[in-house]
Amino acid sequence: MLVRSTIGEVLKDLRLEQGKTLRTISADARVALGYLSELERGQKEASSEILDALAFALGVPTYQIIVEAGYRMMPSVELDKRKETLYTQYHNVNHYEKVG
Amino acid sequence: MLVRSTIGEVLKDLRLEQGKTLRTISADARVALGYLSELERGQKEASSEILDALAFALGVPTYQIIVEAGYRMMPSVELDKRKETLYTQYHNVNHYEKVG
Repeated sequence: MLVRSTIGEVLKDLRLEQGKTLRTISADARVALGYLSELERGQKEASSEILDALAFALGVPTYQIIVEAGYRMMPSVELDKRKETLYTQYHNVNHYEKVG
Repeated sequence: MLVRSTIGEVLKDLRLEQGKTLRTISADARVALGYLSELERGQKEASSEILDALAFALGVPTYQIIVEAGYRMMPSVELDKRKETLYTQYHNVNHYEKVG
């Protein structure tokens, strides 16, 4: 699964969870309606600026979309290892913040 | 922090952890050297295909780059809430896989 397809799914799911239309998010994020539709279907890459605008329109931080997309890309065969990975990653984040 | 800047940092850190040069990763991933350098500095957006190629050259699954970038984008003020978010996200992943 390509990153853009997974990000598109996350964007669509977040929008539908809130009962919002493509038109509403398009207007709030100032992203063209057709382009937003293509993004949700994984047919276009979202620039970082457009991701920020869409996250803002959806009322979530950008990192939530990114982390959610990353989780969805994990193969199910690695389910058992996932918790350990999360812990490791979490630990690393703290480490980076300490030294950064 | 923009997504592309954070992804660039992750790509660079993964490369340096392995003691590899831009030239090596560029050749292994078949990505132009100058373009790879711009990606690492957050000056260009990586397409999903290029991200896959770079992840392969770095010997990690693409989702690891994505999740790591997402974690690094989390503001430190949310550190306490982070574990809870991770649990929620983890739970969601299982849910999606069950219904998917």
